[in-house]
Formats: sequence, C-alpha cells, structure tokens
Amino acid sequence: MRVNSQRLHDDLSRLAEIGATPGGGVTRLALSDEDKAARDLLRSWLEDAGLAVRVDDLGNITGRRAGSAEAPAVILASHLDSVRQGGRYDGAYGVLAALEVVRTLNDHGAATRHPIEVVDWTNEEGVRFEPAMLCSGGVAGRFDRDYVYSRTDRDGVRFEDELRRIGYLGKEANRPGPGAASLEAHIEQGPVLEAEDLPIGVVLGIVGITWLDVRLSGRADHAGPTPMAHRRDALAAAARLISGVEAMARETDETVATVGRFVVEPNSINTIPGRVVMSVDFRHPSASTLDALVAGLTRLAVDVQRESGVEIAVDRFWTSEPTPFDNGVQAAVQAACDELGVPSRRLWSRAGHDAKYAQDLCPAAMIFVRSRDGLSHNEAEYSAPDDLEAGANVLLLAALRLADARSR
Amino acid sequence: MRVNSQRLHDDLSRLAEIGATPGGGVTRLALSDEDKAARDLLRSWLEDAGLAVRVDDLGNITGRRAGSAEAPAVILASHLDSVRQGGRYDGAYGVLAALEVVRTLNDHGAATRHPIEVVDWTNEEGVRFEPAMLCSGGVAGRFDRDYVYSRTDRDGVRFEDELRRIGYLGKEANRPGPGAASLEAHIEQGPVLEAEDLPIGVVLGIVGITWLDVRLSGRADHAGPTPMAHRRDALAAAARLISGVEAMARETDETVATVGRFVVEPNSINTIPGRVVMSVDFRHPSASTLDALVAGLTRLAVDVQRESGVEIAVDRFWTSEPTPFDNGVQAAVQAACDELGVPSRRLWSRAGHDAKYAQDLCPAAMIFVRSRDGLSHNEAEYSAPDDLEAGANVLLLAALRLADARSR
Repeated sequence: MRVNSQRLHDDLSRLAEIGATPGGGVTRLALSDEDKAARDLLRSWLEDAGLAVRVDDLGNITGRRAGSAEAPAVILASHLDSVRQGGRYDGAYGVLAALEVVRTLNDHGAATRHPIEVVDWTNEEGVRFEPAMLCSGGVAGRFDRDYVYSRTDRDGVRFEDELRRIGYLGKEANRPGPGAASLEAHIEQGPVLEAEDLPIGVVLGIVGITWLDVRLSGRADHAGPTPMAHRRDALAAAARLISGVEAMARETDETVATVGRFVVEPNSINTIPGRVVMSVDFRHPSASTLDALVAGLTRLAVDVQRESGVEIAVDRFWTSEPTPFDNGVQAAVQAACDELGVPSRRLWSRAGHDAKYAQDLCPAAMIFVRSRDGLSHNEAEYSAPDDLEAGANVLLLAALRLADARSR
Repeated sequence: MRVNSQRLHDDLSRLAEIGATPGGGVTRLALSDEDKAARDLLRSWLEDAGLAVRVDDLGNITGRRAGSAEAPAVILASHLDSVRQGGRYDGAYGVLAALEVVRTLNDHGAATRHPIEVVDWTNEEGVRFEPAMLCSGGVAGRFDRDYVYSRTDRDGVRFEDELRRIGYLGKEANRPGPGAASLEAHIEQGPVLEAEDLPIGVVLGIVGITWLDVRLSGRADHAGPTPMAHRRDALAAAARLISGVEAMARETDETVATVGRFVVEPNSINTIPGRVVMSVDFRHPSASTLDALVAGLTRLAVDVQRESGVEIAVDRFWTSEPTPFDNGVQAAVQAACDELGVPSRRLWSRAGHDAKYAQDLCPAAMIFVRSRDGLSHNEAEYSAPDDLEAGANVLLLAALRLADARSR
C-alpha cells in the first residue's frame, strides 16, 4: 500500500493558493481570513474522505476515521497556520500527508483496529498569538483555556474573539484523542538531511531550549581621549561573550547556541559603547548539558567582568525542557523506513513542534522530510515531491503498524 | 606676573549660568539664544578690558590688545558653544583664560611687542551645525563661506540666517590674525593627566582620525535547526573583528580604536544574525600607522570571511590627517610650565580642537588642564580651581614669551 503522490502534490498546491505571496510562499496567520479559508478547505476534504469532523473549544480540527475496535486513536497531526511570508510546506505538509494516509486507506478498503484522527492544531507558529504551539499545549494542559482565550495579537485582538469570528469555536468534548499514539510529519527546516543525502529523518525528540538575557554595563566615554587601558567598553566585552558562546557550542556535541538579539547604546561612531543588551539561545537534547552551558556562560561572564571592568548580569528567563519521543513510536517510524527501503537517520528536532505537547497526551514521534538549503520560515522553502511522497509513505506504514499493533 | 584665580573662577561661574542645566552643566548650542547671551557677555568683558572688539563674516569674535610693534598677533582662542547637556569648562575655559591673561597684563601695565588677540571661534562642537570646528576651518580655508553659510541644523535652519538673527554676522576683514602664534587652553577631556597626577599637559598635536564602515553579510537562519557548522553568522564574525580591532589598538602604542556604531539584523532572539553594520574609529599621531591599522583590519576581515563564510566589506570613508603642533610654540608652553614649577607631560590630543585649523594660519599649540574622571561632554565635567589657575598661568607666561620673543 502506497500513497498517491500526485494527489498529495495537487492538494499542497491548492492549499498554497490560500494566503499565497508574490514570492511563492504563504502568509496564513492563525485565525485570519486565510486560516479560515484553509480550514474550510481542509474540512471539505476530510468530509469528502468520509471522516467525522469535529472542532474543539480551541479551534483544533479533528477528522476521525473509525477503527474496528473500541480503542484510542492514532493521531496524525500538524498545523495549517504559517508565519508571515512563510513557506508552503511548514505545517501544511503534515496535515495533508495525514489526509493522504486516510485517503489511501480508503482507496484500499483497509481497516485498522484503532481509529485514525487527522488533526489541525490551532496557532502552532505563535506569530500572531504568543506563545507558539498554543492549542496543542492547551489540550495537553500546559495552558488553561482562559489563558489561551486571552492571548491578543499586535492589534489587541483577542484569540477567543477571532476564533468565534471565523466560526471555529467548538466544544471541549471535541478535543482530539484519547490517543494511542501521535505522529507528526514535517519538513526538517534545517540542512542536516540534505548534507547527508537522506530523504527522511526519524526524530529522536525535541531538544531543550533555554533563553538568557545578558546585560553589560560599562561606561560611555569619548572615543578619542580615553586610552585603551582606561576603557570600560561594553561592546568589546560582549564580543568576548559572543565568541565564547560560539566556542562552547562547537565544543559540545549536539549543541547549537545563538546570540540573536543585540542592542548597543549609545550607538554613536565616536562614543565608546556604555551598554549592551543581548540574548543567548542554547539548545541541547539534555537538560543537564543545558545547565552546564548556562554555567559556562556565567563563569565566562565573571571572567570578562573582572578583566574588562564591565558589569555583566546574566538572567536565564525561559526554558523549554527536552522532550525525548517514545521509543515504540520511533521504532514504528524506523520500521516503516526500512520496509520502504528509504534511507534515513535519527536526529533531534532543534525547533519546537506540536508533537512536543502531543507527547504529553500519548506516545509520540515525528518524521522529518529533507528541506532544500535548510530554508524555512522563508518563501523559498522547498522539499522535492519524491521526498514528500517518501515521508507520506513512512507516515502511512508507521500509522498502520501503530493502528493495528497497539490493539493486539 | 600671575593671573587672578578668583576672577577667572567667578567669571567661569557667571558664564555657566547661561544655558545652565539642572544637572550642573550647560546647553549652549552654536548661534542659539544662549550662545548670543554668552557672546554678549564676552563682548562686554572684552570691551571692559580695553580691547578692540571685532566680529567677522563667520561670527568669530576677536578682542585685540595692541602691541608695541607692527607685528602679527599672538592668538589665544577657544569657543563658547557647547554640546547638549555638556560641561561648563569645555571651550569656555580657554576663552576666559585668554581674557584673564589680558586682564593680568592690564593689571600690571605690561606691554607686549606683538598684539594679543582673544578669540571665540564659532560652532566648534558641530552638534548644531556639522561639521565640527566649522569657523576656524572657514578662516583656515578648509571650508568656503558659502559652505559654512549653507549648513543647516536638524530643523533645517541655515547657519547664515541664525548668525544674522543673533546679530553676529560681521565682515570678512574682521577675521582673527594675521597671527604670529596661536595657543588654545582646554580641559583634557580624558583621564591621562589625572592618572599620572599632573595638572598640565603640553599638547604635541592632534592625532589623525580615520573612520570605517564595515558591513557583514551572512545568512539569517533559524537558531534551532541550523547546526553550528552550517551557519554564516554575521554577529559571530563581527565579534572576531571587534576583538581584533581592540587587540590591534592595545598592541600599537598611542593608538585608540573604537567600534561605536553597531546594528544587527534581523535582531530576533531565535534567528541567526544575517547582517551587521559597524563602524571603526582609529586614532593615531602618525598617518602611516593609521594606514597600517586599516590594512590590519582589512587583512583580518579577509581571514574572518574565509573562515566564517560571511562576506565582509570594509569602507574607509573619512580621514582627518594628524596635525603635529609647532615645536617653537610647544617649547614656549613647556618653558612656562618649567618657570612656574608646574608638573606636566607631553601628550597628544585624540579629539579635534580649533587649534588644528589654527595651525594652518600660524604656528600653534595647546595647553591641557587635568579633568576629573576624564569626563567631558557631560554635565559632571570638572576641573579643580587650582588646575584651572595653573593652566591660565601657563597660558600667560607662554603668551608673554611668544608676544615678545617673536618680534626680536
């Protein structure tokens, strides 16, 4: 049994017309008119595939294909919302690959013991309503409903009001699940699979992420009359932290570290910088390694402060703990790859996905599909049709294993 | 013969009432109502001291004390304008010390062979009308009159219109000089004299300054899914340049180097910086060393580009050549220090002063007075009365030497 690649491709193209941007991408912010149009189209496709469609109190859409037994569902999920000027595959691919799995089962008249649910999670990106993965998190109990409803966009518009406006405010009883397992197919959004010429990644889990705010306070002096030895240059001190953060990441396997936000004051050509505020983003699969990276940065800051005379305050203000995926669900994905003869490797996801919170609900895992140039959140985002087909077939065979084997 | 320290101190205090700020400094932008009030006060003091006062086409004010011979003047000059929320000594001290020299000569009925001219140069700071040192530069022929007149402030107000409005648009024939020598007393604006417990500096000249614009173009990728080895991080590359610039300055005697302007894009916590634009300010007494510093930065940029994959463009867009002061005028200042028993050292000015352009007109030098904490362009700017007195006495005795000796 294999998916219909042309049908998947056609429907991805059709969906990409909704919110299409001149640069070939999409802008389909959560609960916008474009999101509503995409939801309406998805609902019609789910209904055409014979699924029972329901909408929950957070706007999550579930299409259910009955199983032969009274059993929890195998959930195949992703999201239809996008960032501004995003790509056409991020999220959308996972939902349409799930739809294609169900259609393929229908084409073959195949029954599964477990029901299969196709899910569109609301507001994964967090671009319109922060934080990201808001409604998978809501179902997982990470955020309560009042919190979700009270989120506002940059214009002050409330989540709840927009959800009602677009006609997707349903009932709590309609939430996805209960689940036997959850799978999310997604483009990689990074260059690892491409670099190793592999179409598919079996995702080990989602790394831990920690964010720090680092504030450097030196003294803003005249660039001329202040000799080097008398300076307390916040930018020169910050440069040592940036290089140190980069070195720590290169020396520690599986680590990425980024200084992304960086503001210098007074930012004048002939004034020594008196103040720098910078962010540090550390990501690693292990919470203890994350702690060690933070400790390393803190030690470095103490050294740099002593040597430069610049006061440095380090504040670790947010952490998302590592989420290893379920071994059994990963094994089903690996077995599907092996059965198909699709070359693959295990890898960690270094970005967040709804599967992180799905893992709170039931055993979960993800399937990554190779991205060209590692580009994502970018109109030029691209994955080749053959790779998208391979990913959908892995999703199909893994779902079959999970939907039958779990009920034995 | 010695100056009257109390009179100098009282008049500095009186002048500091004009444009006084709550923080104890002054805001007296060029050609503002405050500048006019300061000029009017200076003019009355010059006239009270028996000087012949004239105003030239650029608003420069000259008070002339006749000499006993037909000879070029010894010019004692500085400026009355300030930066926003500046200090009460920067510029003002040099003009009032010059006035005090003349008053002291009067008190003692002393004659000089050369005339002595007390000069207030218009718009030294360049804060209201760019560039700095506009009207000493105008007299020196660095800027023509049309250029000076066409300068506008941030509200679009023309220099010429403001000069006329405050009643200080005079005749070209009234420009200062011709000069036999020019001296400018000024606070140091740096910490060198304080660090060495010396009240006075004999200024060797004004260093050369060169400004560069450095643009780094990497790739703005997701902070998560992009492994360290695949990154082209413009900020990480910039950090190496900042550290390299600092190291070059520390390794090269008499050098200061500053990265002051620094902008990162997209400046988002979870995006690898794709672009950095930064300035570099190099200062050194020797033009060839400045060239070598620029060459060193360019070589470093090539290395960093090769190793990081970040494209780096270096543009040297402005240079102010070094201006060594006249040996004879410096010797007169040194002899005055020695005669007074005032401890001093030679040092370079690393900031611009009107004396740079005065040196185009006649042999010039400067006298620096110790600044507390090296602070300047700051309301907390401070020099002790004893040091201000010492500086004025050095100016007096140096002026006496130059005003008599030159005519022998």
